[in-house]
Amino acid sequence: MGHATLVRGDNIRTGVTAILPHGGNLFREKVPGAVFIGNAFGKLAGSTQVNELGEIETPILLTSTLNVPRVADALIDYMLPLPGNENVRSINPLVGETNDGSLNDIRGRHVGREEVFAALRGARGGPVEEGAVGAGTGTIAFGWKGGIGTSSRKAVSWTVGVLVQSNFGGDLRINGAPVGRELRPRPPAGAGDGSIMMVVATDAPVDHRNLQRMGARTMMGLARTGSSGSNGSGDYAIAFSTARNPARLLTNDEMSPLFLAVIEATEEAILNSLFRARTMTGSGRTVEALPIDRTVEILRRWGVLFLSLP
Amino acid sequence: MGHATLVRGDNIRTGVTAILPHGGNLFREKVPGAVFIGNAFGKLAGSTQVNELGEIETPILLTSTLNVPRVADALIDYMLPLPGNENVRSINPLVGETNDGSLNDIRGRHVGREEVFAALRGARGGPVEEGAVGAGTGTIAFGWKGGIGTSSRKAVSWTVGVLVQSNFGGDLRINGAPVGRELRPRPPAGAGDGSIMMVVATDAPVDHRNLQRMGARTMMGLARTGSSGSNGSGDYAIAFSTARNPARLLTNDEMSPLFLAVIEATEEAILNSLFRARTMTGSGRTVEALPIDRTVEILRRWGVLFLSLP
Amino acid sequence: MGHATLVRGDNIRTGVTAILPHGGNLFREKVPGAVFIGNAFGKLAGSTQVNELGEIETPILLTSTLNVPRVADALIDYMLPLPGNENVRSINPLVGETNDGSLNDIRGRHVGREEVFAALRGARGGPVEEGAVGAGTGTIAFGWKGGIGTSSRKAVSWTVGVLVQSNFGGDLRINGAPVGRELRPRPPAGAGDGSIMMVVATDAPVDHRNLQRMGARTMMGLARTGSSGSNGSGDYAIAFSTARNPARLLTNDEMSPLFLAVIEATEEAILNSLFRARTMTGSGRTVEALPIDRTVEILRRWGVLFLSLP
Amino acid sequence: MGHATLVRGDNIRTGVTAILPHGGNLFREKVPGAVFIGNAFGKLAGSTQVNELGEIETPILLTSTLNVPRVADALIDYMLPLPGNENVRSINPLVGETNDGSLNDIRGRHVGREEVFAALRGARGGPVEEGAVGAGTGTIAFGWKGGIGTSSRKAVSWTVGVLVQSNFGGDLRINGAPVGRELRPRPPAGAGDGSIMMVVATDAPVDHRNLQRMGARTMMGLARTGSSGSNGSGDYAIAFSTARNPARLLTNDEMSPLFLAVIEATEEAILNSLFRARTMTGSGRTVEALPIDRTVEILRRWGVLFLSLP
Repeated sequence: MGHATLVRGDNIRTGVTAILPHGGNLFREKVPGAVFIGNAFGKLAGSTQVNELGEIETPILLTSTLNVPRVADALIDYMLPLPGNENVRSINPLVGETNDGSLNDIRGRHVGREEVFAALRGARGGPVEEGAVGAGTGTIAFGWKGGIGTSSRKAVSWTVGVLVQSNFGGDLRINGAPVGRELRPRPPAGAGDGSIMMVVATDAPVDHRNLQRMGARTMMGLARTGSSGSNGSGDYAIAFSTARNPARLLTNDEMSPLFLAVIEATEEAILNSLFRARTMTGSGRTVEALPIDRTVEILRRWGVLFLSLP
Repeated sequence: MGHATLVRGDNIRTGVTAILPHGGNLFREKVPGAVFIGNAFGKLAGSTQVNELGEIETPILLTSTLNVPRVADALIDYMLPLPGNENVRSINPLVGETNDGSLNDIRGRHVGREEVFAALRGARGGPVEEGAVGAGTGTIAFGWKGGIGTSSRKAVSWTVGVLVQSNFGGDLRINGAPVGRELRPRPPAGAGDGSIMMVVATDAPVDHRNLQRMGARTMMGLARTGSSGSNGSGDYAIAFSTARNPARLLTNDEMSPLFLAVIEATEEAILNSLFRARTMTGSGRTVEALPIDRTVEILRRWGVLFLSLP
Repeated sequence: MGHATLVRGDNIRTGVTAILPHGGNLFREKVPGAVFIGNAFGKLAGSTQVNELGEIETPILLTSTLNVPRVADALIDYMLPLPGNENVRSINPLVGETNDGSLNDIRGRHVGREEVFAALRGARGGPVEEGAVGAGTGTIAFGWKGGIGTSSRKAVSWTVGVLVQSNFGGDLRINGAPVGRELRPRPPAGAGDGSIMMVVATDAPVDHRNLQRMGARTMMGLARTGSSGSNGSGDYAIAFSTARNPARLLTNDEMSPLFLAVIEATEEAILNSLFRARTMTGSGRTVEALPIDRTVEILRRWGVLFLSLP
Repeated sequence: MGHATLVRGDNIRTGVTAILPHGGNLFREKVPGAVFIGNAFGKLAGSTQVNELGEIETPILLTSTLNVPRVADALIDYMLPLPGNENVRSINPLVGETNDGSLNDIRGRHVGREEVFAALRGARGGPVEEGAVGAGTGTIAFGWKGGIGTSSRKAVSWTVGVLVQSNFGGDLRINGAPVGRELRPRPPAGAGDGSIMMVVATDAPVDHRNLQRMGARTMMGLARTGSSGSNGSGDYAIAFSTARNPARLLTNDEMSPLFLAVIEATEEAILNSLFRARTMTGSGRTVEALPIDRTVEILRRWGVLFLSLP
């Protein structure tokens, strides 16, 4: 993948983010896929069939916890009439969520067919809008405003891209610097639970089994940022490959660079979700964006501002 | 469980069956639960959280494949306003399905909030209506009309009840007699895929781990009836205990009688789903009920008519 | 596979059975493999790596419970000096077991390098010796003498072979006839726990994921014979394909005939393990072989003697 | 647990480390236990039964990869004659490993009954010897000499202790400081694979399910130290509770502090394994201990020397 193939639509009002592994009819041209479950306090729809059959047959949608069923229902609405699907009687919608109930009127479930279709039809290649957009509109991470973030790495000749919907607690570390401890968000980040959805895309020819192993590495990237791994955090990874009928699959021995790429891209995607967020007010509460200036100052003081540059 | 605790509502028009582990607010008084995955070509909602947290927090609803999201959405509608749930912002609806697309207008998804509420509010203790009712209205098993079936067994001082939504292929065996081979349904049963949802309820004090082991035994009961274990059959078991805060849990060594009870009750519940079904016509196709007279004659000829009596 | 590729050596005194997926150096030429866990009251060595990497790198050895470590150690002895393995520093021996402690002096662990090498070197193609041989020397199934049994089925253009080491309790059914209930072995079969190892071999081009799904179907074949699925029964399946670098893999949709073949071959392999066993005495106890004449008479009376013939 | 209950024996020559959940006969007084599999390129014996039955019935032994079978065999030797085990015919030895083939003559497998018994009989409460001892004698982590390390945390009123056998690659981070990048070990750490065994002990009343969730958090602690999550790294966690028959179990909601404790104690235990190691020479190769002075200087320069102090 890479940014170019990580297509995402979003709608600030609705909280839906769409990831399309390719631009065709996914039901007709399924992609190899896997779901890795880090901590399943979460309502991800579609995981079991993905892992049994090793493939993904719809776009991946992210939303707010209680919206999962109606987003999944709208995704069926979207899939059924696609050319070639006229006789389809079974579809496995893949819909993830995090709980943005602190800022959003979560019980209101203000999402429907219109918003889902807008996200799907707005999907496009190129740079991905990040921050408090789409399914990230109301999320909170480390006590600061979270949201959508992406990053990618090259691994040998392949690309690994990660998109996250960040919404969890812990003590933020950036390049190792204890930013959370220094900035002390109010209320304390560790108090909350929350969740994170991590979507891993690659153009490497890997099958379900190694995609699931790639998914497992997202938890290592998540850990580097300071997640506290709390009981209430629904931590899921969805991994897919855009290489559908490869002449050969990568061997186990070839996977290590891709695993490392997942770890690093996940870490960076989470940080990007914070850096691109903005202060939001909702449900009578304001959650501030990570203060960039003060964060940069801390990183400079810790000497890690340019750590990941060559 | 036993029939008394296996409460189910149904609505022939809608295809929803509700199983309520108890009559109170399940979100406030969760029950120990587990989901066992026999073959995950299926869209069961809620399984991952049940297995992570070891508990069930909503009624269990069964329906038709493409209805799962809107039934889950209606279940959230039902749960949110319950007394005590005013501030609840996370609910894990547990909704299973089989694919009745041969008889039903499955793409029409003619189920909504009204039908779900009717099923939930119609739930009651006592004898369970079986056959082509509720979520079993349009299902097909072994080439004959399938549906809802239940059975129970006593194991030591505990009861194990099983409710199935039968909808799969294979060569029907009853008490070992090759009924399918003799009756030869048209079209042949083996040609179809299909699925089965198996709900196991017990009053034995068992935790998530042993409930999952009980769930695994449903596949052995299913196998006895002649299921072909096909790729397209979504075979899931949901197991729960009504013993919420027991003074002690059963040990592993005490589980064998309950495992055998699951096998036998699953086998019998599947047979009951056939014996209680009736011929149905839908989508321009008629699926006949198992011909009882001819079946009894075969069982008599094979000497297995009264096999399970003492 | 088929009988021709299901190579097994055995030594009545030692209780070791060897299955060689091919005749070469398996560490250099690994085969796709999977382990399915039906009920893990058992000591199978090597399962986790097989499932992580999706491949098998040693012969599969079966033995008695407490012998697993020393058989695994001898298997390392065997693998390390093979040409090409001079610098190998990591080997994953795959060794299964059932508990034959009723007949054998199980605590004595009378197996060592000599017996393991004999089993490995005695491995050959062609008909597989069945019954009370090798790892089946001391096993008991359904209250009768169990042992090694094999069977195979053609599925489309592929072959599926199953070899079992039978050692478990339940109420024996043969083609549905309640043989166990009629013959009433002493002591009753249901009282015991025991285990079964089921090895599935195929020449079909299937990967780890579908091999594991094939492994899952062994439990359905086991169920058909009347296993009670008891707590203490270690029920494992090891599945492998002899197609190492296929031009293409079978799709999910192509798997159903192979799944059915696994069910049927497992059922028949278990029956064969009984039919080919002979009465054995050990540890002061005699376990009788299934009385063939009386069994045939029962099958004839139930009309199922020739059930599986065309 | 905590250091007081994390008893460990070791023998520099042999590479065996023993962890005894309690001082009695573990087979008679089993403890709740779980195995979490981070990446199963490894040969851990006993995991499947632990996860099926939810309990551990032997001491936990750690050793070198190819020694697992003979250490497991010696552990059976140790268990069988214990008072009360006279009629035991089934034991599930739990033996983990990492691959120390760079320094040790791994193919020689110089470990036997004598060394295992010495480790078991040398086990004692109190401070745990760390560094290049026992099963950590020949291990390498981040390019430096690894070994045994331990740490513990208080969580509410409970203690969580972690013992690691560190032997893996990556880019060492200490409190976030990029120590690996600055010190640049020769050969580069990232080149190697390796493994890590992580044993989690607690006195909190938690069952198998929550012990497995605690085990999962070890991967997050591991990630914080800079592990690259490579294909060849066998990353396993074994978790147990010393609370055998608690009046009540912790609820899911009470787990978060214990999860965080696992993350932090795992991170610190890994660092301790490095700080307490010493330069070792073996197989014609010398692996240096982490240079403490230079490391401290880096930590001071990065301002993280006293980061974890209050």
